Amino acid sequence: MPASPTRFVYLGPESTFAEQALRTIPEAEAGVCTPARSVPEALDAVRSGQADAALVPVENSIGGQIGVSLDELASGSPLMIMREVVLLVQFVLVSRENRPLDTIGEVAAHPQSSAQCRRWLRTNLGEPAIVDVLSNGAAAAGVAEGRHKVAICAPIGAVRYGLTVLAKDIADHPNGMTRFALVRRPAPPPPPTGDDVTTLAVSIAHDRVGALLAVLTELAVRGISLTRIESRPTGERLGRYMFFLDCDGHVAEARLGEALAGLRRVCADVRFLGSYPRAETEYGERVVPPAGVTDADFADAAKWLTRLRSGQPE
Amino acid sequence: MPASPTRFVYLGPESTFAEQALRTIPEAEAGVCTPARSVPEALDAVRSGQADAALVPVENSIGGQIGVSLDELASGSPLMIMREVVLLVQFVLVSRENRPLDTIGEVAAHPQSSAQCRRWLRTNLGEPAIVDVLSNGAAAAGVAEGRHKVAICAPIGAVRYGLTVLAKDIADHPNGMTRFALVRRPAPPPPPTGDDVTTLAVSIAHDRVGALLAVLTELAVRGISLTRIESRPTGERLGRYMFFLDCDGHVAEARLGEALAGLRRVCADVRFLGSYPRAETEYGERVVPPAGVTDADFADAAKWLTRLRSGQPE
Amino acid sequence: MPASPTRFVYLGPESTFAEQALRTIPEAEAGVCTPARSVPEALDAVRSGQADAALVPVENSIGGQIGVSLDELASGSPLMIMREVVLLVQFVLVSRENRPLDTIGEVAAHPQSSAQCRRWLRTNLGEPAIVDVLSNGAAAAGVAEGRHKVAICAPIGAVRYGLTVLAKDIADHPNGMTRFALVRRPAPPPPPTGDDVTTLAVSIAHDRVGALLAVLTELAVRGISLTRIESRPTGERLGRYMFFLDCDGHVAEARLGEALAGLRRVCADVRFLGSYPRAETEYGERVVPPAGVTDADFADAAKWLTRLRSGQPE
Amino acid sequence: MPASPTRFVYLGPESTFAEQALRTIPEAEAGVCTPARSVPEALDAVRSGQADAALVPVENSIGGQIGVSLDELASGSPLMIMREVVLLVQFVLVSRENRPLDTIGEVAAHPQSSAQCRRWLRTNLGEPAIVDVLSNGAAAAGVAEGRHKVAICAPIGAVRYGLTVLAKDIADHPNGMTRFALVRRPAPPPPPTGDDVTTLAVSIAHDRVGALLAVLTELAVRGISLTRIESRPTGERLGRYMFFLDCDGHVAEARLGEALAGLRRVCADVRFLGSYPRAETEYGERVVPPAGVTDADFADAAKWLTRLRSGQPE
Repeated sequence: MPASPTRFVYLGPESTFAEQALRTIPEAEAGVCTPARSVPEALDAVRSGQADAALVPVENSIGGQIGVSLDELASGSPLMIMREVVLLVQFVLVSRENRPLDTIGEVAAHPQSSAQCRRWLRTNLGEPAIVDVLSNGAAAAGVAEGRHKVAICAPIGAVRYGLTVLAKDIADHPNGMTRFALVRRPAPPPPPTGDDVTTLAVSIAHDRVGALLAVLTELAVRGISLTRIESRPTGERLGRYMFFLDCDGHVAEARLGEALAGLRRVCADVRFLGSYPRAETEYGERVVPPAGVTDADFADAAKWLTRLRSGQPE
Repeated sequence: MPASPTRFVYLGPESTFAEQALRTIPEAEAGVCTPARSVPEALDAVRSGQADAALVPVENSIGGQIGVSLDELASGSPLMIMREVVLLVQFVLVSRENRPLDTIGEVAAHPQSSAQCRRWLRTNLGEPAIVDVLSNGAAAAGVAEGRHKVAICAPIGAVRYGLTVLAKDIADHPNGMTRFALVRRPAPPPPPTGDDVTTLAVSIAHDRVGALLAVLTELAVRGISLTRIESRPTGERLGRYMFFLDCDGHVAEARLGEALAGLRRVCADVRFLGSYPRAETEYGERVVPPAGVTDADFADAAKWLTRLRSGQPE
Repeated sequence: MPASPTRFVYLGPESTFAEQALRTIPEAEAGVCTPARSVPEALDAVRSGQADAALVPVENSIGGQIGVSLDELASGSPLMIMREVVLLVQFVLVSRENRPLDTIGEVAAHPQSSAQCRRWLRTNLGEPAIVDVLSNGAAAAGVAEGRHKVAICAPIGAVRYGLTVLAKDIADHPNGMTRFALVRRPAPPPPPTGDDVTTLAVSIAHDRVGALLAVLTELAVRGISLTRIESRPTGERLGRYMFFLDCDGHVAEARLGEALAGLRRVCADVRFLGSYPRAETEYGERVVPPAGVTDADFADAAKWLTRLRSGQPE
Repeated sequence: MPASPTRFVYLGPESTFAEQALRTIPEAEAGVCTPARSVPEALDAVRSGQADAALVPVENSIGGQIGVSLDELASGSPLMIMREVVLLVQFVLVSRENRPLDTIGEVAAHPQSSAQCRRWLRTNLGEPAIVDVLSNGAAAAGVAEGRHKVAICAPIGAVRYGLTVLAKDIADHPNGMTRFALVRRPAPPPPPTGDDVTTLAVSIAHDRVGALLAVLTELAVRGISLTRIESRPTGERLGRYMFFLDCDGHVAEARLGEALAGLRRVCADVRFLGSYPRAETEYGERVVPPAGVTDADFADAAKWLTRLRSGQPE
């Protein structure tokens, strides 16, 4: 009996960047890919076992954090990020047939998409009327179905619906990127590669001055660099936050393990959200760890400590 | 000749929480209040002199940071926050006439509003169809104009359009709050009250390990507590952030002044976004500063230093 | 066959504070106690196996560090402190027979002893001539053998030589104390008591800015307090130091173990000089460790980390 | 009327290293130089106005801190170090006439001097008997006056008494150095040279965990390096220390000034002991300060702060 194909869900609708990102994962080609109406729906499908993995956006280099994804990962039953996908955000201007840019008076677009193309639109189309739609996929579908004449969408939308691309690469920031997380139910993390990311959700005691400084010190003292820190409200009231940290390193490594255990001891709560290979996109300088924090350094120090405790100091 | 009334803009449309928040400011009652279509439009009106002050949301205790407000404050010509307004977010369910809850199959709402009432909707209306609209004001107007039967909106929307309130306090988090900033062109900050907030936008050199730790240390060593830290992408690419900090204290105070000057020296860039009285809502524990950081302590130390430098050590 | 009695050496000559301190240790009563001519000689006797344990002074509350003891412990083959003895330093003024204080024109004393009684001597004897001798024991012996008429010595010297005590408690600081270390060849440390001291000799890389800050941070982040820090020159040249640290805690405890391993990783050299019970004298406030650093906290965090690594996050 | 010559005192007796160090100061050649019997006597002569300046040793690269000098500087009426002198410690073996080394059975020496030549003595003289004397000057005088046959003394002693040098450079550490401080009554410090040392005596509150960490952080955050830290007992009881710090920089510089003022605010007590040029001996690597701490950086930041406070943020 052949193995069942892996069931993927992604933040839908179809023809959005999330689908495009999922298609970059080899296993997804052989799997079943289903859109979800929302991030909570996508993650709940994994939690309940209806799906094996979900791909959801976690941050965008222009718009910043995707709060709903962070919040949903930090609450509910545990999930783990097994992989990240970083996608260059390229927008295209589409219609059903070719037409001169100077005849376009109205453009359908998701508000974030039109915002990211604002300068291009002003320069090339004057100040067209923007019709807000609910997703890039809906913008493409709307053109295909005749509800809109012209729209901004993802390249995959143009392909899917056979639309004419009037202009491509129209984003104001040519290097805009979205980072997606492939999330599964808890399982052993993929093995360390030497260039991994570990994601944590950390709650600090709100009544302790310097608590965030203490968190950063726990990392710094073991030579762990942060590549990202995001705050999210806990929902209780203003002034209460949790922090999402992306650290250099892998939970299987000694330095990160000790730092994690340290956070566990000093923080009100720490949720481990996964260790996974850094995506091969050029988005972060690798930080060279300081001296003294390799696994070999930790092993040497542990052996030395064992000798000390048994009365054999050298 | 009487003085011209102060011209306020706020994030529109009318009948949203921003208008409701603006109405809590005494001067606004005597002023002219105009909605803006977006946060950038509101702030640009102040920058250009078309308006004297703008009220825009900066964070929500459920949804988190309002990225566009932070980004717009951190770029363009300088603006300063002169006041904060914190508003309890109360949603009401409205229609044109009274009707039983169990006859409602569809509700118009801004997506964030329906998300914040999800549990209440499921419990009280089953799983109604949600029609997404672009603002709480549009939801109320839509009911008033007959486009929608039932909507979720802000209390001010029900009053403005004379709608019937079918249910009030329907938010799942009863203490949800939104924090707004009243922004003006640069001017001397309001005088210290003893319980002030100072907002900063700080860029750190991306290639310096421990740079965030250094920022926090500059604050901690002068006894400054952080009540909020938000990261925002710089837009250049993933992995580049700036930080928005809300600090306890006022720029006129010695400890905050010295900490600010320290940040100026060690950070790639620091933008001062204002010192203003903490809103009288119960959203943050006051943190008692450690010993040695009052203005008197700084003045004593400065006098002592002057004596040392002139060769009179005691 | 009965066990051989334990062979103790102490910094001689006889009748000094070191002998008096050794006599407070119960095992010493049943052992053989031999004076050594110097601290190096005492420690070398232990290293070579001629003696089982050596008692040497390490600091004095008036005179400070006993440099030679620190230097000798930090170099040569490893030794470990198994016990500390803290002795109240009480000086007596002695002669062979009773005589009025106002007839005394000359007093024999070790220079440190006369220095510690300077005010008393001036007040009670005018300004007597001081004859420097090489130890408190030599002062007492000198009186007994007629070389001196009056001397300052330790109480044990008066007893040993049957001298008349003309005045007691003549030290200017009534609570002067000397701390001695009982040193043995490496062996398992005595078990933790809950109030232990751990002594380390730490060398830092001389070319690293902030290296001492890094050392203190390794301790602080695990909740370890320092009760003492002494610098000693390495002898290479001015500006090169090593540090002697007395930490709260025992090497068998998780928090101290992890801190030690951290120092091992980041310092040029760390020599462990023993974990032993704090002497029951009132010389240090016990510092209550911060939350999160008990052995139970460490064990909990270690178990949690094991679960994370195996993919079972909760 | 010609100005009176400057009156110098130095730690005597004559013919010691202190006199040799004093002779390296040009003004001393034209001044009156008088030996004092002890460090307290030398410093009291300055305090009382009997002398204008005192030269006393503060540390030795082999023996470490000269506790009595540190203690006397930290107490009593304020004094300030105006200059440091670093002297290479060279010992010579002297007698009245030439004689073969293998005929020497006894050597007179100050205990620290014989200790520093121990290896040389063993190698070249076998194990000669050592006769302890109270100073290097006394050793030379003793030979001159016939009380001793052979002695270890400072080169100046051989010159002064016309003694025959049997061997020179006999110290085991060829680069042993002693550092002396030239101390005066409070006066404006010598102007900054760009390579200065500032000496402080700092008392920390004994009941505050992490107090030393706080002291170091005050320095580090302003980019100040420590070249030396010494602890000294306060004399009250064991476990109470004060710290002597040698910092890179000059009190007239902004970074050091701000750090000093910070210490003043957070420490129980800070005594400023002088800013003076680093001696031109090769004893410390110059530490390059981090970015952002020049006087220009501080001035820029102070101007910026003034603009912020007046409402002109750019």
